[in-house]
Amino acid sequence: MNDLISRLLAHERIRAARHHIERTDEVTLARQAALSAIPAPTGAEGRRAAHLAELFRTIGLSDVSIDHAGNVHGWLGKNGRREAGEVGGPVVLAAHLDTVFGAEVDVAVERRGQRLEGPGISDNARGLAALVAVAEAMVAARVPVARPILFAATVGEEGSGDLRGVKHLLNGKHDVTPAAFIALDGAGLDRVIHRALGSKRYHVTFRGPGGHSWAAFGVANPANAVGRAAALLADLPTQQAPRTTCAVVRLGGGTGLNSIPQEAWLDLDLRSEDPRALAQLDVTVRAALERAADDENRRRTAGSPTLRVEVQLLGDRPSGMTPRAHPLVQAAVAANRALGRDAELASASTDANVPIALGIPAIALGAGGKAGDAHLATEWYENVEGALGIIRALLVTAAMAEVG
Amino acid sequence: MNDLISRLLAHERIRAARHHIERTDEVTLARQAALSAIPAPTGAEGRRAAHLAELFRTIGLSDVSIDHAGNVHGWLGKNGRREAGEVGGPVVLAAHLDTVFGAEVDVAVERRGQRLEGPGISDNARGLAALVAVAEAMVAARVPVARPILFAATVGEEGSGDLRGVKHLLNGKHDVTPAAFIALDGAGLDRVIHRALGSKRYHVTFRGPGGHSWAAFGVANPANAVGRAAALLADLPTQQAPRTTCAVVRLGGGTGLNSIPQEAWLDLDLRSEDPRALAQLDVTVRAALERAADDENRRRTAGSPTLRVEVQLLGDRPSGMTPRAHPLVQAAVAANRALGRDAELASASTDANVPIALGIPAIALGAGGKAGDAHLATEWYENVEGALGIIRALLVTAAMAEVG
Repeated sequence: MNDLISRLLAHERIRAARHHIERTDEVTLARQAALSAIPAPTGAEGRRAAHLAELFRTIGLSDVSIDHAGNVHGWLGKNGRREAGEVGGPVVLAAHLDTVFGAEVDVAVERRGQRLEGPGISDNARGLAALVAVAEAMVAARVPVARPILFAATVGEEGSGDLRGVKHLLNGKHDVTPAAFIALDGAGLDRVIHRALGSKRYHVTFRGPGGHSWAAFGVANPANAVGRAAALLADLPTQQAPRTTCAVVRLGGGTGLNSIPQEAWLDLDLRSEDPRALAQLDVTVRAALERAADDENRRRTAGSPTLRVEVQLLGDRPSGMTPRAHPLVQAAVAANRALGRDAELASASTDANVPIALGIPAIALGAGGKAGDAHLATEWYENVEGALGIIRALLVTAAMAEVG
Repeated sequence: MNDLISRLLAHERIRAARHHIERTDEVTLARQAALSAIPAPTGAEGRRAAHLAELFRTIGLSDVSIDHAGNVHGWLGKNGRREAGEVGGPVVLAAHLDTVFGAEVDVAVERRGQRLEGPGISDNARGLAALVAVAEAMVAARVPVARPILFAATVGEEGSGDLRGVKHLLNGKHDVTPAAFIALDGAGLDRVIHRALGSKRYHVTFRGPGGHSWAAFGVANPANAVGRAAALLADLPTQQAPRTTCAVVRLGGGTGLNSIPQEAWLDLDLRSEDPRALAQLDVTVRAALERAADDENRRRTAGSPTLRVEVQLLGDRPSGMTPRAHPLVQAAVAANRALGRDAELASASTDANVPIALGIPAIALGAGGKAGDAHLATEWYENVEGALGIIRALLVTAAMAEVG
């Protein structure tokens, strides 16, 4: 694989594409700032998507469209054109459109030298700008590809989006299965994410009769059941290999200071890189929730109504991995080495989770530069080795598209 | 005391007042429905107070006013007029204005025959309507009183109000200390509340470092600590003599589905009729809160910050009692007997807690009729023996005001 990457780096058209990326570093940074300043809360990515589609058309991608889910598609075919009757699955290079920030958050961007500040400036305005930069460089340099490349900007990657965009993209009707999937997510140059951190998110509600906190005291109290559930889950044995976690992330319930609530709830975030460990945790958590209700019911006033528990699935992200030995992972590792940076194999929850669960080789890569305060209003991006990250994406994409 | 009540029942003006109450039973019921349909969340009783003041004026009370706290005052003096230079403390007949229902709750009233349905229809629209009915009957029948009577509609009786209205009413500057205090609260005819159910209400906040639910998993989680605290409190031994309770009435915390919260909280309602039992419970609860924080801290990732717990006092209602042998309690018991109903001596947390703690003889009485689902949106009132409850209040008030 090191040989393949070396050959690509010496390939005339790839050298031209690399040069294009380096020359347009400032253009890319300006696009990143412009994209970041268009609000794109999960579920309301339309304006940013329209801007992306316009960029895709301007730089010369083919068949640019926005699908029913809201994802933006643009194609680069063999010899720079997508051709009818092509065989072989495409390579998908993707970046998510949405941010964790609600419509009420001001997403204006401030620039100070090479530093940009604004909510979402790295996650994922950087990924989107890099997606455009790779496409533009390949079009401009007329990089010949044996497999077509689908450049895709996806909706609903964050939190409650539950990977909605990529699920639509890959679960929809396709002529052929993609040969590889590469997600550009945020900044950075070291990590190669080949393990999909799976998660299940639950909204758990306990319901009971409620009543006056003195007169009715002794009835089953949903707030107690939430407490018992949280305490049981907090005492689950920690599990490190594979690392598997269950966090109580939100809880609520109750109305007045002298009322036993009729309803109380907690939200849970279960995660693991390993699908079997996640499934096992799921069983354990559900048993704990039932036990919490049972424990509370057992102490209730004789003859009073029992608590009921309702478990609602809020999110379901599959786990899995693309094996370290797979050519896609090896291409990324080799690209890192060729660019003088050791690769760090890592896990995360990204758009790559979905293709991995579908058996499509997939990884996620940072798009260069440095960043901090992800998911906070103080998020920042610094364009240090920004172009290198885009060049890495170019090399991995070209390797998978069988350039040369 | 039985003789006094018998004499009152035979007194010409009292008979006229009783007849007035019976004749206006339907008017009272309509007033109850109208009052209940005016939203009066604790802290926002203004509209209902204005309506009460208008009623007080219409029926002919003197010196009707609304004080700085928002309580409505109306006076009936000797011979039906309040007179300058009167000596001797007044009798206070009071009913609270506020409901446990927030501004978002629809408080529309539905009537089905003798049954009224609506949040707050009994607690305390019934008490308020009865307060007006007693006053109107005494004015109309020109009942001669040796002591003036202050008819008072109070704010802030429920939950977070912490008896704010009656505290202002009795702790403010007064010429003379009231001779007796009678609260009309909700429905019913049997109970005579002479024991003040004391309570302490706490807002307990746990704070920790927070962080990403996967990356930072293992840090001390305030939501876990809330759960541990609720579970420990739910398992406290039940205590019946004196009955002593601790209810988790509200809880909350957390922001997003992939964040360990930096803060989570729970609200507690501790109660007992016995001041010493309440103080002992207080110690037990504080120890449980510390233990919840310790248990969570003990499991945290080595070297990560510890949780801190902060306990804020939201409410403090004194316990105590008006002795069973006191003429006020005896008058209520005798009135019950004269009306053919055995009295049940009971405890509750009402406006009467405050005068009891100040050494002023005080009781609380239901205002007749039957009711259910107090503090729930499905609250209902049935006007069965409704007039009898108002007549009982008339008799006790008249006895204390030394009619005859």
